[in-house]
Amino acid sequence: MLFITRRERFSSAHKLWNTSLSDEENNKIFGKCAYPNSHGHNYQIFVTVKGQINPKTGYVIDAKNLKSIIKKYIIDKTDHRNLNMDVDFLENINPTIENLLVKFWEQLEAPIKAEGCNLHKIKLIETENNYGEYYG
Amino acid sequence: MLFITRRERFSSAHKLWNTSLSDEENNKIFGKCAYPNSHGHNYQIFVTVKGQINPKTGYVIDAKNLKSIIKKYIIDKTDHRNLNMDVDFLENINPTIENLLVKFWEQLEAPIKAEGCNLHKIKLIETENNYGEYYG
Amino acid sequence: MLFITRRERFSSAHKLWNTSLSDEENNKIFGKCAYPNSHGHNYQIFVTVKGQINPKTGYVIDAKNLKSIIKKYIIDKTDHRNLNMDVDFLENINPTIENLLVKFWEQLEAPIKAEGCNLHKIKLIETENNYGEYYG
Amino acid sequence: MLFITRRERFSSAHKLWNTSLSDEENNKIFGKCAYPNSHGHNYQIFVTVKGQINPKTGYVIDAKNLKSIIKKYIIDKTDHRNLNMDVDFLENINPTIENLLVKFWEQLEAPIKAEGCNLHKIKLIETENNYGEYYG
Amino acid sequence: MLFITRRERFSSAHKLWNTSLSDEENNKIFGKCAYPNSHGHNYQIFVTVKGQINPKTGYVIDAKNLKSIIKKYIIDKTDHRNLNMDVDFLENINPTIENLLVKFWEQLEAPIKAEGCNLHKIKLIETENNYGEYYG
Amino acid sequence: MLFITRRERFSSAHKLWNTSLSDEENNKIFGKCAYPNSHGHNYQIFVTVKGQINPKTGYVIDAKNLKSIIKKYIIDKTDHRNLNMDVDFLENINPTIENLLVKFWEQLEAPIKAEGCNLHKIKLIETENNYGEYYG
Repeated sequence: MLFITRRERFSSAHKLWNTSLSDEENNKIFGKCAYPNSHGHNYQIFVTVKGQINPKTGYVIDAKNLKSIIKKYIIDKTDHRNLNMDVDFLENINPTIENLLVKFWEQLEAPIKAEGCNLHKIKLIETENNYGEYYG
Repeated sequence: MLFITRRERFSSAHKLWNTSLSDEENNKIFGKCAYPNSHGHNYQIFVTVKGQINPKTGYVIDAKNLKSIIKKYIIDKTDHRNLNMDVDFLENINPTIENLLVKFWEQLEAPIKAEGCNLHKIKLIETENNYGEYYG
Repeated sequence: MLFITRRERFSSAHKLWNTSLSDEENNKIFGKCAYPNSHGHNYQIFVTVKGQINPKTGYVIDAKNLKSIIKKYIIDKTDHRNLNMDVDFLENINPTIENLLVKFWEQLEAPIKAEGCNLHKIKLIETENNYGEYYG
Repeated sequence: MLFITRRERFSSAHKLWNTSLSDEENNKIFGKCAYPNSHGHNYQIFVTVKGQINPKTGYVIDAKNLKSIIKKYIIDKTDHRNLNMDVDFLENINPTIENLLVKFWEQLEAPIKAEGCNLHKIKLIETENNYGEYYG
Repeated sequence: MLFITRRERFSSAHKLWNTSLSDEENNKIFGKCAYPNSHGHNYQIFVTVKGQINPKTGYVIDAKNLKSIIKKYIIDKTDHRNLNMDVDFLENINPTIENLLVKFWEQLEAPIKAEGCNLHKIKLIETENNYGEYYG
Repeated sequence: MLFITRRERFSSAHKLWNTSLSDEENNKIFGKCAYPNSHGHNYQIFVTVKGQINPKTGYVIDAKNLKSIIKKYIIDKTDHRNLNMDVDFLENINPTIENLLVKFWEQLEAPIKAEGCNLHKIKLIETENNYGEYYG
C-alpha cells in the first residue's frame, strides 16, 4: 500500500457565519472572522490517495489525473470565489476548515474511486499557522 | 548603512475593480479577479528600513517598534477585512499589488521617520507566484 | 473525526546534557550539542487535536483557544529562555526533541481535554532537517 | 513510542520509462516525463524511525547516525546521478515516486534496525506539488 | 517606479560541461556536477519587471501576460528537458546558473519590452542553497 | 556583472546585551531578548558575491569555494556556540542582527576577494519575521 499526495491552491474570500444563528451570536462566536464584508485566504489543499502500485505504470495514480480531478471538483468551483456565496456544494455551509474538509471529501471520493484508488486524506491549510485533516 | 526588514501578515478579501470604468470594461480587463463577490489572499508584507547602527542599542530600529508601526498603520486596518470596502486609506482604490504598495508607503513613511529611520522598501507577496516591490 | 493543527514558535537556547552522567560521557555522546555555553533554535511546535465538529460553530476547537493554551503552557515558559535552566516543567530533563515532546504532552493534555477535545499529536521541528512526533 | 524524522536531499536526473514496454507505449503513458534525454528534480527524502526513548541519551536514534545511514545508502548513490542509469539498486526500475519509495525502503530497513530502531515511514517529495509516502 | 515579480518553475536535467575543454579538464573543474549521465533540479525563475502604474488597470504589467511570456520563452523550452541537449537557445552553452541567467535575459527582454515594461532582474534558484541574479 | 548567492545555516545561543551599559539599562532596552541564560535561533546567512563570468568555467565563483569560505570563517565559529561568549571575532559585541552583519562582513571580505570576486551583500535571517542586509 502506497500513498500519493497532490497539492493544489485556491484563493477565496469567506467569513465564518452560521446562517441558522442570529447576527449577535455569530459575532460573539466568530469575532473578526465574521466581519460582514469577508476576508480571504490562499488555501492549499493536499489530497492523498492510497493504493497498490500498477506494475505497468509504476503509479498508484497518475498525478496528472489526480490534478484534473481536484481541479474539476474543487479548484474550478472555489478559486477566485466567495465560499459563502458562490459555490454550489457549499450552500448554507459555514466555511470553517472542518466543514470545508467534509464537503471536499464528498466532492472527491467518487471520482478518485473511479480511477481505481481510494481517497485516504484531505489536508487543508488556511494560514501558515492553521490547518485541518480529514480521513472520511 | 544597514537594512532591517520585518514581515507581517494579513488575510483579506478583495477584487480588482476600477470604479471609474464600466462593469464590462472591468470584467474584460480583470477576468476572474473581478468576480463580484470577491476572492482573497494571505498577504505578506515585508517592510525594510535603512539607517545607521545606534551604538548604544546595536539596532538600526527596534524590531518591536517596527512591528508596532506596521500593526497600527496596516494590519489593524486590513486584516480580516475587504480591501475594496473596509479600509479608510484605500477608498476608491483598485487594490492591485501596485496600488496597495503606494498606499502602504503613504501610511508607513512618516511613522518610521519619527523613529529616526528611513523607509527603504515595501515588498508585498500576494501568492507564492506573485509579488511587488516599491521604493517610494 | 477531524484533526485540527495549530503551529506556534519559540526561540530558545539549550544543550544536550544528561545531568546524571559525567562531563566526559556527555561530551562523548552529544558532541557539539553539548558545548558548555549552549546553542539554540527557532523551534516550531504543531499541536493536533481530534474531535467531532460542533454543529453550532463548525469547529472541532476554536483555533483562538488552542493558540491560548499553547501560549500559556508552552510558549510563555520556553520562548527566549534556556531550556536547561529556565523552565519549571523541564527541570533535570535533557532537552532532546524526544524528551521535549513527552513533557509538552504532559503540559497540554489536560487543558485541551478541558476544551472538550483530545490531544492527538505533537510535532516539534528543531531544524529544517530534524523533527519528532509524539502521540502520547 | 516516539517518531524521529531526518530530511536529506539529492538532485538527480530521471525519466519515467518501463523498459518492458515499447517506446510508443512509454510515450503514451508518461508523456513529457518520458522525454528521451531526461529531466530532473531536487528530491527531498524524509526518513521516520520509531522507538522508545533511550533514558541515557534521551534519543530514539542519534540524528547523526540516521543522517549517516541515509547518506550511505541513498544520497551517495543517487545525488548528481541519473536514476535510470547510474544506481545499482534501481537497475531496470521505472523511477516513479512509488517505485523509488519501495526501493529506498529496502535500502534503509536493515541498517536502521541495526541501530535498534524501526523504520516507520519514508516520504519522498519530487516537486512542491507531488509527494509519496510508504510504510513498508 | 514599481517592480512586479512572477515566479515560474521548470524541472530539468543538466550537467556542467564546457564543450571546448577536454573530458579531463571538465571533470577536474566541475567534479560531480560533470557526471556523464546528468543530474537535475527543480529550478525556480523569478522575473522582475519595472514600470509606471497604468492608471486604468492599476498594473505595471498584467501578471497573466508576464506568466505567458515566461511560459512561451522559457518554460515550454526547458521544462522536462535536458539543458545540455534539448534547448535551442542553449546550444553549446555550459548550463551554469550564470550562463542560464544571461541566456534567459536574451529570451525575455524583447517580449517584455513589447508589453511596455522593462525587464529589471532575473533570479534563478537551483537549490535551496544556491541562486543567482542578473540585471542585464 | 552577475550575482551569486550561497545560503548556510548555524544554530546559536545569544542574548542582546551591551557590556558597557548597566544591567538595568540592558533589561529596559532589550526586554526578553536580554534574559540572563540566553535564548537562540536557527540563523540563515545568505552571502552574495558579484563578478564577471569566467568563460572557461561559466562561474562567477565556484559555489563549492564560496561554501568553504563561509564554513571556515563563519559557520565553524558560530554553529552550536553562544554568540556572546564563544566567538573570537565577536568579543564584546552585542549580537544584534546589525552588529553580526558588520562583523561577518569583516570576516568574509578578504577571502572572497582572494577568489577574484567581490562580496556584494550579506543577508542574515534570525526568524521568519526578522532579517537584516548589509552591503559593506
